[in-house]
Amino acid sequence: MKIALAQIDYHIGNFLENTTNIVLQIKRAQMEGADLIVFSELSVCGYPPLDLLERKDFIEKCNNEIHKIARICKDTAAIIGAPTINPNAKGKLLFNSAYFLYEGEVKAVIHKTLLPTYDIFDEYRYFEPNSEFHVVEFKGKKIALTICEDLWDDQPVESEFARRRLYMLNPMDELIKQHPDFIVNIAASPYSHMRSKIKKSIFIEKAKKYNLPVIYVNQVGAQTQLIFEGGSMAIDKTGGIIEQLKYFSNDFKIVNLDKLVKEKTTAVFEEPDRIKMVHDALITGIKGYFKKMGFYKAVVGLSGGIDSAVTVVLAVRALGAENVHALLMPSQYSSDHSISDSIDLANNLQMKFDIIDIQKSFDTQKEALSQIFNGQKEDITEENLQSRIRAVLLMAFSNKFGHILLNTSNKSEAAVGYGTLYGDMSGGLSVLGDVYKTDVYELAKFINRKTEILPVNIIEKPPSAELKPNQKDSDSLPEYEILDKILFEFIEKQKSPDEIIGFDSDLVTDIIRKVNMNEYKRFQTPPILRISSKAFGGGRRIPLVAKY
Amino acid sequence: MKIALAQIDYHIGNFLENTTNIVLQIKRAQMEGADLIVFSELSVCGYPPLDLLERKDFIEKCNNEIHKIARICKDTAAIIGAPTINPNAKGKLLFNSAYFLYEGEVKAVIHKTLLPTYDIFDEYRYFEPNSEFHVVEFKGKKIALTICEDLWDDQPVESEFARRRLYMLNPMDELIKQHPDFIVNIAASPYSHMRSKIKKSIFIEKAKKYNLPVIYVNQVGAQTQLIFEGGSMAIDKTGGIIEQLKYFSNDFKIVNLDKLVKEKTTAVFEEPDRIKMVHDALITGIKGYFKKMGFYKAVVGLSGGIDSAVTVVLAVRALGAENVHALLMPSQYSSDHSISDSIDLANNLQMKFDIIDIQKSFDTQKEALSQIFNGQKEDITEENLQSRIRAVLLMAFSNKFGHILLNTSNKSEAAVGYGTLYGDMSGGLSVLGDVYKTDVYELAKFINRKTEILPVNIIEKPPSAELKPNQKDSDSLPEYEILDKILFEFIEKQKSPDEIIGFDSDLVTDIIRKVNMNEYKRFQTPPILRISSKAFGGGRRIPLVAKY
Repeated sequence: MKIALAQIDYHIGNFLENTTNIVLQIKRAQMEGADLIVFSELSVCGYPPLDLLERKDFIEKCNNEIHKIARICKDTAAIIGAPTINPNAKGKLLFNSAYFLYEGEVKAVIHKTLLPTYDIFDEYRYFEPNSEFHVVEFKGKKIALTICEDLWDDQPVESEFARRRLYMLNPMDELIKQHPDFIVNIAASPYSHMRSKIKKSIFIEKAKKYNLPVIYVNQVGAQTQLIFEGGSMAIDKTGGIIEQLKYFSNDFKIVNLDKLVKEKTTAVFEEPDRIKMVHDALITGIKGYFKKMGFYKAVVGLSGGIDSAVTVVLAVRALGAENVHALLMPSQYSSDHSISDSIDLANNLQMKFDIIDIQKSFDTQKEALSQIFNGQKEDITEENLQSRIRAVLLMAFSNKFGHILLNTSNKSEAAVGYGTLYGDMSGGLSVLGDVYKTDVYELAKFINRKTEILPVNIIEKPPSAELKPNQKDSDSLPEYEILDKILFEFIEKQKSPDEIIGFDSDLVTDIIRKVNMNEYKRFQTPPILRISSKAFGGGRRIPLVAKY
Repeated sequence: MKIALAQIDYHIGNFLENTTNIVLQIKRAQMEGADLIVFSELSVCGYPPLDLLERKDFIEKCNNEIHKIARICKDTAAIIGAPTINPNAKGKLLFNSAYFLYEGEVKAVIHKTLLPTYDIFDEYRYFEPNSEFHVVEFKGKKIALTICEDLWDDQPVESEFARRRLYMLNPMDELIKQHPDFIVNIAASPYSHMRSKIKKSIFIEKAKKYNLPVIYVNQVGAQTQLIFEGGSMAIDKTGGIIEQLKYFSNDFKIVNLDKLVKEKTTAVFEEPDRIKMVHDALITGIKGYFKKMGFYKAVVGLSGGIDSAVTVVLAVRALGAENVHALLMPSQYSSDHSISDSIDLANNLQMKFDIIDIQKSFDTQKEALSQIFNGQKEDITEENLQSRIRAVLLMAFSNKFGHILLNTSNKSEAAVGYGTLYGDMSGGLSVLGDVYKTDVYELAKFINRKTEILPVNIIEKPPSAELKPNQKDSDSLPEYEILDKILFEFIEKQKSPDEIIGFDSDLVTDIIRKVNMNEYKRFQTPPILRISSKAFGGGRRIPLVAKY
């Protein structure tokens, strides 16, 4: 039996485009003699559709598309993800289903059992969990058809307090009783650090445990904050990876089931370096956001610092140098090299830029405020003022020419509130908001691994916001090597201050206080491209008014 | 048996304050000879604790407080809400529990069965549903102890496509088999339009259906966006309301169980007018946000329009006139009456204000941009520029003096994107972001029902953003009576454009297109006080990049 793995970037709710792409892949599979083609979870509508699932017309459209697609599945069967209305009058309205299409019709519908409802996942908001288990019979073989989390009954977790086993059931333990010949897993499983490695180990373990081949098809591409790496796989029954599809790109491969059962693989699929994965993920994230929003052009404020420099390189790689514009906006506190380094960078990237001095705007606003400030001495207010004037100019550029402002804040500064709301925290998309400062440096090194794209001075000089004379990040923050480690323990590992050991305890308390008191700023942050197991945004829900 | 209902405003994670308040109420109940005192859902930590529930130290603190409180519950028993660790190695880590404390110890722990995971609720994210049913025996009586949604197995819904019965179980159908003498329901059920009426009808129906008295204790006060109205009740077994606690205020009442079983009530508790409830809810929301965040003072930009006028009245009623400051920031497009009306309003409220002309700042910024705008004609860019300059000044005032900026956008304009990101969409809290413009007028009438607090000209003049010559809202939007009805059908009732009938279909399409294309602006909105069944924010999750 020949099985095609179709790894596609879907656009949520764009039924015309999704169905067209699905049909093209089915035709290709037919031409190449495949018996079966497998698509990813909720492929008809794209994942995650969120509250669009609460609209009747959306569910009807999903259903219509499934039946349209079924009609072309004659000799080649297809497995496609779509929501189904729960026929029981009680329980959630929908199931998250896998449709088995063959001979021009829907032959079987299998529902998802384990519904992730943690971090960025909210599936129990919409779906009733399945409780009946059937294999799908096809050409003399029995398929154990599972949907993403269905194979994740036991999964590694970052926080020591979190659960490995979030569910009472294990769908494969039920399905194995019906003696399936292979496992299919259709997924929409987003990327985060090391997650592709973890996925591999889960599928390999399942293949070994049940002594069955596993066909895993993941979604690829970005949906606002979430980046799906693809990396679909065919694994033989001994746990050997026979075939792996590309990371961060559409892909299509046909595998022979006999091979997965009989042969021992010698193929080797090495995981790319972590920073290369982050680099590729962020570019995929920018590309996806712009393409799906219908945007082409971006504007970035280049400060001379490493964050905006790395952001602009990623933007150019995602959108092309001709579509990225930089604004350099010096004030009296900007160092000369900030401008010259930024110009060098823009020239290295062959991109356009403008320089607007903000000093006069800054002075005029200060003057307008002087009547009510009444001689009070300058403080953080005037620092924020510069940052906000720059945002006003960037947004004016955006409004006039249609360029989307990219936010350049990193995760470390977003965490401790080292940024100005409606100032440098502005933008349509935050590129580095889930990248700790130490990883921004790693990205910079990765970008410069062959040639000096980022002027080395940008990487080597001490970080500074340049909002008052001789300011440095280290005036008010510890070294980023220390800061990032403490933040990781608190944010990703969800430890309490008492549990974070190996650092000065006053420092830990002070940093966590800063993280907590700046929740209100992050509440208004742009969407942040997610690359970690715990990004700021919808996957981390802290009550603003909490006192804890 | 004498039962005390303790309706308290908890502060999430503020264990010291919460336990102190709980202990005070227990002592009062003891002094007044109550046998039992009932608190609300998750009362030890306050509701909703969200992802703080994922921290080990937070759960340990909840547990410690429960045991501290238990020690003082000697002769008077107490029912208190707190999370419990699930002893089973599989399933979610926690239960959402009701603790029965008596004779100095924990006598029983009952877990919640029906976990709301819709709109603003995410309980399945944290909790395992209960599946074992036991009444609690106390002084010869059996208590059917339920937690909030446990009595909501069948509930009215706004959208026709949504489910009345979201759950497979009905906890009371299980508990009734053990012949309880009365029902206790501890709740944290937030306010929205007409919701207090719906709650009454649900509890009355349950009392009648099971022929049992119902003691219902709700949380009161605001937690960021969510406003809890209180309105706890004692209902006799015929469905008569014997006692109802105050709306939007702490309260305490003792009821006699014998009365609930034997007598027929003659008490009448009329529901206040809808707009009075909204008015009181918003004031509670502002008060709660400021008190819990540790803030005292607010600043509002007064434009001369009705939204900022109503916002400032509500702010003064919540915080006191001495704690609210207005900035009037005219430009060349501001009408004279905008300034004079705003001054009249500020004087009516006896509050301080300053006037800052933004013309010079506007001109300076335009000049700074002219080198790159290159003679392009003025457009929406320059309108946004004025709005953003005002936000910069308001935020500078906020930074310098510590006043929190209140956002004045209403739900109608937030819906269609009639607002400037980082301009008039700025603020620490959005007061009217869930109030349709037509309801803003109703609020204005309510505020002026006795004396003219809002200058009548502010109410009567045609709405305008005053960002270009002779601009009116009606230039680009239909009349608000029409707009709000269409928006309600789309947002609250979740209808598709085709299902929204009785309006010009091109108009419907155009409005819904505007709603969809402005999701990106609302993504960065401040927290919005929620008064409807579908507010913008965490209860409405639309994928930004969706094309639908």
